[in-house]
Amino acid sequence: VCLSKGEENINRRRALLVSIGIVVTTILSLVTAARRHGAMLDSESAGRGLDQLRLSCPNVPARPPYAEKARRARWMVHTLEWGVLSSISTRLSGDAPVPFGNIYSFSDGPCDASSGVPYMFASDLDQSMKDIKENSMVSLTLSEAELSGPLLPDECVVGGQKGYGDPENPPCARLVLTGEFLKLSPPSDDSSEHGDKKEWEFAHQALAKRHPSMAKMPANHKPFIGKILLRDIWFIDMYGGATIIDLDEYYAASPSDEGVGDDEESV
Amino acid sequence: VCLSKGEENINRRRALLVSIGIVVTTILSLVTAARRHGAMLDSESAGRGLDQLRLSCPNVPARPPYAEKARRARWMVHTLEWGVLSSISTRLSGDAPVPFGNIYSFSDGPCDASSGVPYMFASDLDQSMKDIKENSMVSLTLSEAELSGPLLPDECVVGGQKGYGDPENPPCARLVLTGEFLKLSPPSDDSSEHGDKKEWEFAHQALAKRHPSMAKMPANHKPFIGKILLRDIWFIDMYGGATIIDLDEYYAASPSDEGVGDDEESV
Repeated sequence: VCLSKGEENINRRRALLVSIGIVVTTILSLVTAARRHGAMLDSESAGRGLDQLRLSCPNVPARPPYAEKARRARWMVHTLEWGVLSSISTRLSGDAPVPFGNIYSFSDGPCDASSGVPYMFASDLDQSMKDIKENSMVSLTLSEAELSGPLLPDECVVGGQKGYGDPENPPCARLVLTGEFLKLSPPSDDSSEHGDKKEWEFAHQALAKRHPSMAKMPANHKPFIGKILLRDIWFIDMYGGATIIDLDEYYAASPSDEGVGDDEESV
Repeated sequence: VCLSKGEENINRRRALLVSIGIVVTTILSLVTAARRHGAMLDSESAGRGLDQLRLSCPNVPARPPYAEKARRARWMVHTLEWGVLSSISTRLSGDAPVPFGNIYSFSDGPCDASSGVPYMFASDLDQSMKDIKENSMVSLTLSEAELSGPLLPDECVVGGQKGYGDPENPPCARLVLTGEFLKLSPPSDDSSEHGDKKEWEFAHQALAKRHPSMAKMPANHKPFIGKILLRDIWFIDMYGGATIIDLDEYYAASPSDEGVGDDEESV
Protein backbone atom coordinates (compact mmCIF):
# COMPACT_ATOMS: atom_id res chain seq x y z
CA VAL A 1 0.00 0.00 0.00
CA CYS A 2 1.42 3.36 -1.06
CA LEU A 3 0.37 6.75 0.43
CA SER A 4 0.99 10.22 -1.00
CA LYS A 5 2.72 12.90 1.14
CA GLY A 6 -0.76 14.48 1.70
CA GLU A 7 -2.32 11.22 2.88
CA GLU A 8 0.64 10.60 5.17
CA ASN A 9 0.20 14.09 6.72
CA ILE A 10 -3.53 13.49 7.26
CA ASN A 11 -2.69 10.19 9.00
CA ARG A 12 -0.10 11.96 11.17
CA ARG A 13 -2.64 14.68 12.13
CA ARG A 14 -5.24 12.02 12.93
CA ALA A 15 -2.74 10.19 15.11
CA LEU A 16 -1.86 13.47 16.87
CA LEU A 17 -5.55 14.36 17.51
CA VAL A 18 -6.21 10.85 18.77
CA SER A 19 -3.21 11.07 21.12
CA ILE A 20 -4.39 14.44 22.48
CA GLY A 21 -7.89 12.99 22.93
CA ILE A 22 -6.53 10.06 24.90
CA VAL A 23 -4.39 12.26 27.12
CA VAL A 24 -7.28 14.68 27.85
CA THR A 25 -9.87 11.99 28.60
CA THR A 26 -7.37 10.05 30.73
CA ILE A 27 -6.54 13.16 32.76
CA LEU A 28 -10.26 13.99 33.13
CA SER A 29 -11.15 10.51 34.29
CA LEU A 30 -8.21 10.42 36.70
CA VAL A 31 -9.14 13.81 38.17
CA THR A 32 -12.82 12.97 38.63
CA ALA A 33 -11.95 9.55 40.03
CA ALA A 34 -9.53 11.12 42.49
CA ARG A 35 -12.06 13.74 43.56
CA ARG A 36 -14.72 11.10 43.91
CA HIS A 37 -12.33 9.03 45.98
CA GLY A 38 -11.72 12.10 48.15
CA ALA A 39 -15.44 12.46 48.79
CA MET A 40 -15.77 8.78 49.61
CA LEU A 41 -12.89 8.43 52.04
CA ASP A 42 -13.81 6.28 54.99
CA SER A 43 -13.90 7.76 58.46
CA GLU A 44 -10.45 6.47 59.40
CA SER A 45 -8.58 8.27 56.67
CA ALA A 46 -10.88 11.25 56.17
CA GLY A 47 -8.55 14.14 56.62
CA ARG A 48 -9.34 16.39 53.72
CA GLY A 49 -12.70 15.23 52.35
CA LEU A 50 -14.84 17.70 50.44
CA ASP A 51 -17.84 17.45 52.73
CA GLN A 52 -15.65 18.04 55.73
CA LEU A 53 -16.16 21.76 55.12
CA ARG A 54 -19.54 21.14 56.73
CA LEU A 55 -17.68 21.10 60.08
CA SER A 56 -16.40 24.34 61.56
CA CYS A 57 -12.85 22.96 61.82
CA PRO A 58 -11.17 22.29 58.47
CA ASN A 59 -8.98 19.48 59.77
CA VAL A 60 -10.23 16.81 62.12
CA PRO A 61 -7.89 14.35 63.84
CA ALA A 62 -8.50 10.69 62.96
CA ARG A 63 -11.17 9.03 65.12
CA PRO A 64 -9.44 7.14 67.97
CA PRO A 65 -10.02 3.36 68.08
CA TYR A 66 -12.68 1.92 70.39
CA ALA A 67 -10.24 0.61 72.95
CA GLU A 68 -9.17 4.17 73.82
CA LYS A 69 -12.44 5.24 75.37
CA ALA A 70 -11.39 8.46 77.13
CA ARG A 71 -9.65 9.65 73.96
CA ARG A 72 -12.62 8.72 71.77
CA ALA A 73 -14.96 10.62 74.13
CA ARG A 74 -12.66 13.67 73.99
CA TRP A 75 -12.57 13.35 70.18
CA MET A 76 -16.38 13.39 70.05
CA VAL A 77 -16.64 16.43 72.35
CA HIS A 78 -14.03 18.32 70.32
CA THR A 79 -15.29 17.29 66.86
CA LEU A 80 -19.08 17.31 67.19
CA GLU A 81 -20.88 20.64 67.17
CA TRP A 82 -24.25 20.02 68.77
CA GLY A 83 -25.98 17.70 71.15
CA VAL A 84 -29.20 17.21 73.06
CA LEU A 85 -29.30 19.00 76.41
CA SER A 86 -31.79 17.22 78.62
CA SER A 87 -33.26 18.92 81.66
CA ILE A 88 -36.14 18.30 84.04
CA SER A 89 -39.15 20.01 82.48
CA THR A 90 -40.85 22.84 84.34
CA ARG A 91 -43.43 23.29 81.57
CA LEU A 92 -44.74 19.72 81.72
CA SER A 93 -44.24 18.79 85.36
CA GLY A 94 -46.87 16.44 86.76
CA ASP A 95 -46.97 14.00 89.67
CA ALA A 96 -43.62 12.63 88.54
CA PRO A 97 -40.77 14.51 86.85
CA VAL A 98 -40.82 14.78 83.04
CA PRO A 99 -37.60 15.06 80.96
CA PHE A 100 -37.10 17.65 78.22
CA GLY A 101 -34.38 17.25 75.57
CA ASN A 102 -33.45 20.36 73.55
CA ILE A 103 -30.90 21.02 70.80
CA TYR A 104 -27.79 22.94 71.88
CA SER A 105 -24.66 23.88 69.97
CA PHE A 106 -21.53 23.67 72.06
CA SER A 107 -17.74 23.92 71.84
CA ASP A 108 -14.96 22.65 74.08
CA GLY A 109 -12.43 24.96 72.43
CA PRO A 110 -11.29 26.51 69.15
CA CYS A 111 -10.12 24.03 66.50
CA ASP A 112 -6.56 23.91 67.87
CA ALA A 113 -7.40 23.70 71.61
CA SER A 114 -9.64 21.13 73.31
CA SER A 115 -10.62 21.50 76.98
CA GLY A 116 -13.15 18.66 77.26
CA VAL A 117 -15.61 21.12 78.88
CA PRO A 118 -18.78 21.74 76.86
CA TYR A 119 -19.49 25.49 76.69
CA MET A 120 -22.73 26.90 75.25
CA PHE A 121 -24.27 30.22 74.36
CA ALA A 122 -27.66 30.44 76.04
CA SER A 123 -30.53 32.79 76.88
CA ASP A 124 -33.02 32.75 79.74
CA LEU A 125 -35.74 33.02 77.08
CA ASP A 126 -35.04 29.39 76.16
CA GLN A 127 -37.12 26.61 77.71
CA SER A 128 -34.05 24.65 78.88
CA MET A 129 -32.73 27.64 80.81
CA LYS A 130 -36.12 28.08 82.50
CA ASP A 131 -35.79 24.44 83.55
CA ILE A 132 -32.25 24.71 84.93
CA LYS A 133 -33.31 27.60 87.19
CA GLU A 134 -35.35 25.00 89.09
CA ASN A 135 -32.98 22.04 88.72
CA SER A 136 -29.53 22.58 87.24
CA MET A 137 -28.74 18.90 86.56
CA VAL A 138 -28.55 18.22 82.83
CA SER A 139 -27.23 15.62 80.43
CA LEU A 140 -25.63 16.39 77.06
CA THR A 141 -25.97 13.54 74.57
CA LEU A 142 -23.79 13.11 71.49
CA SER A 143 -23.73 10.53 68.69
CA GLU A 144 -21.25 9.91 65.91
CA ALA A 145 -24.34 9.65 63.68
CA GLU A 146 -24.31 13.49 63.77
CA LEU A 147 -21.30 13.51 61.44
CA SER A 148 -21.93 14.31 57.79
CA GLY A 149 -20.35 13.43 54.47
CA PRO A 150 -17.14 11.38 54.49
CA LEU A 151 -16.79 11.72 58.28
CA LEU A 152 -20.06 9.83 58.93
CA PRO A 153 -18.83 6.41 60.16
CA ASP A 154 -20.12 3.41 58.25
CA GLU A 155 -21.13 1.93 61.63
CA CYS A 156 -23.78 4.67 61.93
CA VAL A 157 -25.29 4.25 58.47
CA VAL A 158 -28.34 1.99 58.06
CA GLY A 159 -27.11 -0.91 55.92
CA GLY A 160 -23.45 0.05 56.44
CA GLN A 161 -20.84 -2.17 58.07
CA LYS A 162 -22.02 -5.26 56.13
CA GLY A 163 -25.61 -4.70 57.20
CA TYR A 164 -24.93 -4.06 60.90
CA GLY A 165 -24.71 -0.28 60.58
CA ASP A 166 -27.32 1.81 62.40
CA PRO A 167 -27.33 4.92 64.61
CA GLU A 168 -28.29 2.54 67.46
CA ASN A 169 -25.53 0.05 66.55
CA PRO A 170 -23.12 0.15 69.56
CA PRO A 171 -19.96 0.76 67.43
CA CYS A 172 -21.63 4.04 66.31
CA ALA A 173 -20.39 5.71 69.49
CA ARG A 174 -22.70 7.59 71.85
CA LEU A 175 -21.70 9.73 74.78
CA VAL A 176 -23.78 11.09 77.66
CA LEU A 177 -22.18 13.79 79.79
CA THR A 178 -24.12 14.50 82.98
CA GLY A 179 -23.53 17.35 85.39
CA GLU A 180 -24.53 20.71 86.72
CA PHE A 181 -25.26 23.53 84.30
CA LEU A 182 -23.44 26.69 85.42
CA LYS A 183 -23.48 30.24 84.07
CA LEU A 184 -20.03 31.80 83.60
CA SER A 185 -19.56 35.28 85.07
CA PRO A 186 -18.80 37.74 82.26
CA PRO A 187 -15.59 39.82 82.67
CA SER A 188 -17.79 42.90 83.21
CA ASP A 189 -19.07 41.33 86.44
CA ASP A 190 -17.20 43.01 89.34
CA SER A 191 -17.34 39.88 91.47
CA SER A 192 -15.67 37.90 88.67
CA GLU A 193 -12.24 36.60 89.70
CA HIS A 194 -9.12 36.38 87.51
CA GLY A 195 -9.57 32.65 86.85
CA ASP A 196 -13.21 33.20 85.93
CA LYS A 197 -12.21 35.91 83.46
CA LYS A 198 -9.68 33.63 81.81
CA GLU A 199 -12.24 30.84 81.51
CA TRP A 200 -14.86 33.23 80.09
CA GLU A 201 -12.35 34.46 77.47
CA PHE A 202 -11.48 30.88 76.48
CA ALA A 203 -15.15 29.84 76.33
CA HIS A 204 -16.13 32.92 74.34
CA GLN A 205 -13.37 32.29 71.80
CA ALA A 206 -14.31 28.58 71.68
CA LEU A 207 -17.91 29.46 70.82
CA ALA A 208 -17.36 32.53 68.63
CA LYS A 209 -14.91 30.63 66.41
CA ARG A 210 -16.98 27.49 66.00
CA HIS A 211 -20.52 28.89 66.25
CA PRO A 212 -20.12 32.42 64.87
CA SER A 213 -23.85 32.92 64.24
CA MET A 214 -24.64 32.17 67.89
CA ALA A 215 -22.31 35.02 68.86
CA LYS A 216 -24.73 37.30 66.96
CA MET A 217 -27.65 36.52 69.30
CA PRO A 218 -29.69 39.73 69.76
CA ALA A 219 -28.80 41.74 72.90
CA ASN A 220 -32.43 41.66 74.09
CA HIS A 221 -32.05 37.87 74.46
CA LYS A 222 -29.44 38.67 77.14
CA PRO A 223 -27.09 35.92 75.92
CA PHE A 224 -24.66 34.37 78.35
CA ILE A 225 -22.16 31.52 78.35
CA GLY A 226 -22.88 28.35 80.27
CA LYS A 227 -20.94 25.16 80.87
CA ILE A 228 -21.55 21.72 82.27
CA LEU A 229 -19.61 20.86 85.41
CA LEU A 230 -19.24 17.17 84.59
CA ARG A 231 -20.18 14.58 87.23
CA ASP A 232 -20.60 11.44 85.12
CA ILE A 233 -19.55 10.18 81.67
CA TRP A 234 -21.58 7.29 80.21
CA PHE A 235 -20.20 5.91 76.96
CA ILE A 236 -20.91 3.17 74.42
CA ASP A 237 -18.65 2.56 71.42
CA MET A 238 -18.75 -1.25 71.20
CA TYR A 239 -20.99 -4.24 71.94
CA GLY A 240 -21.10 -5.31 75.57
CA GLY A 241 -22.74 -2.43 77.42
CA ALA A 242 -21.83 1.03 78.67
CA THR A 243 -18.54 2.19 80.17
CA ILE A 244 -18.38 4.86 82.87
CA ILE A 245 -15.31 6.93 82.00
CA ASP A 246 -13.29 8.26 84.93
CA LEU A 247 -13.37 12.08 84.94
CA ASP A 248 -9.60 12.46 85.55
CA GLU A 249 -8.85 10.06 82.70
CA TYR A 250 -11.23 12.02 80.47
CA TYR A 251 -9.58 15.37 81.19
CA ALA A 252 -6.07 13.87 80.83
CA ALA A 253 -6.83 12.41 77.39
CA SER A 254 -6.37 14.22 74.08
CA PRO A 255 -8.69 14.01 71.05
CA SER A 256 -5.71 13.37 68.76
CA ASP A 257 -2.53 11.33 68.89
CA GLU A 258 -0.28 14.30 69.45
CA GLY A 259 -2.69 16.51 71.37
CA VAL A 260 -4.73 19.17 69.62
CA GLY A 261 -2.77 22.38 69.31
CA ASP A 262 0.68 20.89 69.94
CA ASP A 263 1.35 20.75 66.24
CA GLU A 264 -1.34 22.09 63.97
CA GLU A 265 0.26 20.48 60.93
CA SER A 266 0.08 17.02 62.38
CA VAL A 267 -3.61 16.88 63.22
CA VAL B 1 5.56 6.08 1.50
CA CYS B 2 4.85 2.43 1.02
CA LEU B 3 3.70 0.01 3.76
CA SER B 4 3.66 -3.75 3.64
CA LYS B 5 0.43 -5.67 4.40
CA GLY B 6 1.90 -6.52 7.83
CA GLU B 7 2.64 -2.86 8.68
CA GLU B 8 -0.86 -1.88 7.52
CA ASN B 9 -2.41 -4.52 9.82
CA ILE B 10 -0.35 -3.29 12.76
CA ASN B 11 -1.54 0.28 12.06
CA ARG B 12 -5.16 -0.89 11.92
CA ARG B 13 -4.78 -2.79 15.18
CA ARG B 14 -3.19 0.27 16.79
CA ALA B 15 -6.08 2.44 15.56
CA LEU B 16 -8.61 -0.09 16.94
CA LEU B 17 -6.90 -0.23 20.35
CA VAL B 18 -6.72 3.57 20.46
CA SER B 19 -10.45 3.82 19.62
CA ILE B 20 -11.36 1.34 22.35
CA GLY B 21 -9.14 3.25 24.78
CA ILE B 22 -10.88 6.54 23.97
CA VAL B 23 -14.36 5.05 24.33
CA VAL B 24 -13.52 3.41 27.68
CA THR B 25 -11.85 6.49 29.20
CA THR B 26 -14.67 8.75 27.96
CA ILE B 27 -17.33 6.48 29.49
CA LEU B 28 -15.34 6.29 32.74
CA SER B 29 -14.93 10.04 33.00
CA LEU B 30 -18.61 10.65 32.18
CA VAL B 31 -19.75 8.11 34.79
CA THR B 32 -17.50 9.47 37.53
CA ALA B 33 -18.46 13.07 36.68
CA ALA B 34 -22.17 12.19 36.79
CA ARG B 35 -21.80 10.37 40.10
CA ARG B 36 -19.83 13.24 41.52
CA HIS B 37 -22.52 15.67 40.37
CA GLY B 38 -25.11 13.50 42.12
CA ALA B 39 -23.17 13.78 45.38
CA MET B 40 -23.00 17.57 45.14
CA LEU B 41 -26.71 18.34 44.75
CA ASP B 42 -27.83 21.09 47.12
CA SER B 43 -30.41 20.41 49.78
CA GLU B 44 -33.31 21.99 47.87
CA SER B 45 -32.97 19.91 44.73
CA ALA B 46 -31.72 16.73 46.35
CA GLY B 47 -34.12 14.15 45.11
CA ARG B 48 -31.82 11.38 44.03
CA GLY B 49 -28.38 12.33 45.37
CA LEU B 50 -25.81 9.65 46.00
CA ASP B 51 -25.51 10.47 49.68
CA GLN B 52 -29.22 10.07 50.05
CA LEU B 53 -28.53 6.33 50.09
CA ARG B 54 -27.33 7.08 53.61
CA LEU B 55 -31.03 7.19 54.54
CA SER B 56 -33.01 3.95 54.64
CA CYS B 57 -35.65 5.34 52.23
CA PRO B 58 -34.39 5.94 48.69
CA ASN B 59 -36.82 8.80 47.98
CA VAL B 60 -37.62 11.49 50.49
CA PRO B 61 -40.48 13.97 49.99
CA ALA B 62 -39.41 17.63 49.77
CA ARG B 63 -39.10 19.32 53.18
CA PRO B 64 -42.35 21.23 53.89
CA PRO B 65 -42.00 25.02 54.35
CA TYR B 66 -41.79 26.48 57.87
CA ALA B 67 -45.36 27.81 57.85
CA GLU B 68 -46.73 24.26 57.72
CA LYS B 69 -45.58 23.22 61.17
CA ALA B 70 -47.61 20.02 61.65
CA ARG B 71 -46.54 18.78 58.21
CA ARG B 72 -42.90 19.70 58.83
CA ALA B 73 -42.99 17.84 62.17
CA ARG B 74 -44.49 14.78 60.46
CA TRP B 75 -41.81 15.05 57.75
CA MET B 76 -39.06 15.01 60.39
CA VAL B 77 -40.57 12.01 62.21
CA HIS B 78 -40.92 10.09 58.94
CA THR B 79 -37.55 11.08 57.43
CA LEU B 80 -35.16 11.07 60.39
CA GLU B 81 -33.92 7.74 61.70
CA TRP B 82 -32.73 8.39 65.23
CA GLY B 83 -33.23 10.76 68.12
CA VAL B 84 -32.37 11.28 71.76
CA LEU B 85 -34.72 9.52 74.16
CA SER B 86 -34.59 11.35 77.48
CA SER B 87 -35.76 9.68 80.65
CA ILE B 88 -35.47 10.32 84.38
CA SER B 89 -32.26 8.63 85.46
CA THR B 90 -32.44 5.80 87.99
CA ARG B 91 -28.65 5.34 87.92
CA LEU B 92 -27.84 8.92 88.97
CA SER B 93 -30.79 9.85 91.15
CA GLY B 94 -29.97 12.26 93.97
CA ASP B 95 -31.99 14.71 96.02
CA ALA B 96 -33.48 16.09 92.82
CA PRO B 97 -34.26 14.17 89.61
CA VAL B 98 -31.49 13.85 87.00
CA PRO B 99 -32.24 13.54 83.26
CA PHE B 100 -30.61 10.92 81.01
CA GLY B 101 -30.58 11.28 77.22
CA ASN B 102 -29.79 8.15 75.17
CA ILE B 103 -29.57 7.46 71.43
CA TYR B 104 -32.54 5.53 69.97
CA SER B 105 -33.31 4.57 66.40
CA PHE B 106 -37.01 4.78 65.60
CA SER B 107 -39.46 4.51 62.71
CA ASP B 108 -43.01 5.79 62.24
CA GLY B 109 -43.59 3.49 59.30
CA PRO B 110 -42.04 1.87 56.23
CA CYS B 111 -40.92 4.32 53.52
CA ASP B 112 -44.37 4.45 51.92
CA ALA B 113 -46.48 4.71 55.11
CA SER B 114 -46.14 7.30 57.88
CA SER B 115 -48.12 6.98 61.13
CA GLY B 116 -46.52 9.82 63.12
CA VAL B 117 -46.01 7.40 66.03
CA PRO B 118 -42.35 6.75 66.92
CA TYR B 119 -41.77 3.01 67.34
CA MET B 120 -38.48 1.60 68.69
CA PHE B 121 -36.80 -1.73 69.21
CA ALA B 122 -35.64 -1.92 72.82
CA SER B 123 -34.28 -4.26 75.49
CA ASP B 124 -34.63 -4.17 79.26
CA LEU B 125 -30.82 -4.46 79.38
CA ASP B 126 -30.61 -0.84 78.21
CA GLN B 127 -30.27 1.97 80.76
CA SER B 128 -33.24 3.93 79.35
CA MET B 129 -35.56 0.95 79.76
CA LYS B 130 -34.40 0.54 83.38
CA ASP B 131 -35.38 4.19 83.83
CA ILE B 132 -38.84 3.92 82.25
CA LYS B 133 -39.74 1.06 84.60
CA GLU B 134 -39.67 3.68 87.36
CA ASN B 135 -41.05 6.63 85.38
CA SER B 136 -42.38 6.06 81.88
CA MET B 137 -42.43 9.74 80.81
CA VAL B 138 -39.87 10.37 78.05
CA SER B 139 -39.04 12.94 75.42
CA LEU B 140 -37.73 12.12 71.95
CA THR B 141 -35.68 14.95 70.45
CA LEU B 142 -34.98 15.34 66.73
CA SER B 143 -32.99 17.89 64.73
CA GLU B 144 -32.70 18.46 61.00
CA ALA B 145 -28.95 18.69 61.66
CA GLU B 146 -29.05 14.86 61.75
CA LEU B 147 -29.46 14.79 57.98
CA SER B 148 -26.38 13.93 55.95
CA GLY B 149 -25.03 14.72 52.52
CA PRO B 150 -27.24 16.72 50.14
CA LEU B 151 -30.24 16.49 52.50
CA LEU B 152 -28.47 18.43 55.28
CA PRO B 153 -30.20 21.85 55.22
CA ASP B 154 -27.93 24.85 54.80
CA GLU B 155 -29.63 26.39 57.85
CA CYS B 156 -28.04 23.66 60.00
CA VAL B 157 -24.49 24.04 58.67
CA VAL B 158 -22.07 26.32 60.57
CA GLY B 159 -21.38 29.18 58.16
CA GLY B 160 -24.28 28.21 55.90
CA GLN B 161 -27.27 30.44 55.13
CA LYS B 162 -25.03 33.51 54.61
CA GLY B 163 -23.32 32.99 57.95
CA TYR B 164 -26.46 32.37 60.03
CA GLY B 165 -26.40 28.61 59.67
CA ASP B 166 -25.92 26.55 62.83
CA PRO B 167 -27.51 23.46 64.41
CA GLU B 168 -28.90 25.86 67.06
CA ASN B 169 -30.15 28.35 64.41
CA PRO B 170 -33.98 28.27 64.78
CA PRO B 171 -34.63 27.62 61.03
CA CYS B 172 -32.70 24.35 61.48
CA ALA B 173 -35.85 22.70 62.81
CA ARG B 174 -35.95 20.86 66.13
CA LEU B 175 -38.78 18.75 67.47
CA VAL B 176 -39.41 17.42 70.98
CA LEU B 177 -42.07 14.74 71.33
CA THR B 178 -43.03 14.08 74.96
CA GLY B 179 -45.19 11.26 76.22
CA GLU B 180 -45.47 7.90 77.89
CA PHE B 181 -43.22 5.06 76.75
CA LEU B 182 -45.31 1.91 76.25
CA LYS B 183 -44.33 -1.66 75.36
CA LEU B 184 -46.39 -3.22 72.58
CA SER B 185 -47.78 -6.69 73.29
CA PRO B 186 -46.33 -9.18 70.83
CA PRO B 187 -48.86 -11.25 68.83
CA SER B 188 -47.73 -14.33 70.80
CA ASP B 189 -49.17 -12.73 73.95
CA ASP B 190 -52.55 -14.40 74.65
CA SER B 191 -53.97 -11.23 76.17
CA SER B 192 -53.09 -9.30 73.01
CA GLU B 193 -56.22 -7.99 71.27
CA HIS B 194 -56.81 -7.79 67.51
CA GLY B 195 -56.00 -4.05 67.32
CA ASP B 196 -52.81 -4.63 69.32
CA LYS B 197 -51.74 -7.36 66.90
CA LYS B 198 -52.28 -5.10 63.90
CA GLU B 199 -50.29 -2.30 65.51
CA TRP B 200 -47.47 -4.69 66.43
CA GLU B 201 -47.33 -5.98 62.83
CA PHE B 202 -47.18 -2.41 61.49
CA ALA B 203 -44.53 -1.36 64.00
CA HIS B 204 -42.44 -4.47 63.36
CA GLN B 205 -42.52 -3.86 59.61
CA ALA B 206 -41.76 -0.15 60.16
CA LEU B 207 -38.65 -1.03 62.17
CA ALA B 208 -37.47 -4.13 60.29
CA LYS B 209 -37.57 -2.27 56.96
CA ARG B 210 -35.82 0.87 58.15
CA HIS B 211 -33.54 -0.50 60.89
CA PRO B 212 -32.84 -4.06 59.68
CA SER B 213 -29.80 -4.54 61.91
CA MET B 214 -31.87 -3.75 65.03
CA ALA B 215 -34.20 -6.60 64.03
CA LYS B 216 -31.17 -8.90 64.47
CA MET B 217 -30.84 -8.08 68.20
CA PRO B 218 -29.76 -11.29 70.02
CA ALA B 219 -32.65 -13.26 71.57
CA ASN B 220 -30.99 -13.15 75.01
CA HIS B 221 -31.50 -9.35 74.96
CA LYS B 222 -35.26 -10.12 74.93
CA PRO B 223 -35.98 -7.41 72.38
CA PHE B 224 -39.43 -5.84 72.32
CA ILE B 225 -41.14 -3.00 70.46
CA GLY B 226 -42.01 0.19 72.29
CA LYS B 227 -43.77 3.39 71.27
CA ILE B 228 -44.34 6.84 72.66
CA LEU B 229 -47.95 7.72 73.44
CA LEU B 230 -47.59 11.41 72.58
CA ARG B 231 -48.84 14.02 75.06
CA ASP B 232 -47.00 17.15 73.88
CA ILE B 233 -45.23 18.36 70.72
CA TRP B 234 -42.77 21.24 71.12
CA PHE B 235 -41.37 22.57 67.86
CA ILE B 236 -39.04 25.30 66.59
CA ASP B 237 -38.45 25.86 62.86
CA MET B 238 -38.18 29.67 62.75
CA TYR B 239 -37.14 32.68 64.84
CA GLY B 240 -39.68 33.78 67.42
CA GLY B 241 -39.89 30.92 69.91
CA ALA B 242 -41.45 27.50 70.17
CA THR B 243 -44.81 26.33 68.87
CA ILE B 244 -46.89 23.69 70.63
CA ILE B 245 -48.39 21.59 67.85
CA ASP B 246 -51.90 20.31 68.43
CA LEU B 247 -51.89 16.49 68.54
CA ASP B 248 -54.93 16.10 66.27
CA GLU B 249 -53.41 18.46 63.72
CA TYR B 250 -50.15 16.48 63.88
CA TYR B 251 -51.82 13.14 63.24
CA ALA B 252 -53.99 14.63 60.45
CA ALA B 253 -50.97 16.06 58.60
CA SER B 254 -48.91 14.22 55.98
CA PRO B 255 -45.12 14.39 55.56
CA SER B 256 -45.54 15.03 51.81
CA ASP B 257 -47.83 17.07 49.59
CA GLU B 258 -49.80 14.10 48.38
CA GLY B 259 -49.50 11.92 51.45
CA VAL B 260 -46.83 9.24 51.74
CA GLY B 261 -48.01 6.04 50.11
CA ASP B 262 -50.84 7.60 48.06
CA ASP B 263 -48.61 7.69 45.03
CA GLU B 264 -45.14 6.32 45.41
CA GLU B 265 -44.01 7.87 42.14
CA SER B 266 -44.88 11.39 43.20
CA VAL B 267 -42.92 11.61 46.45
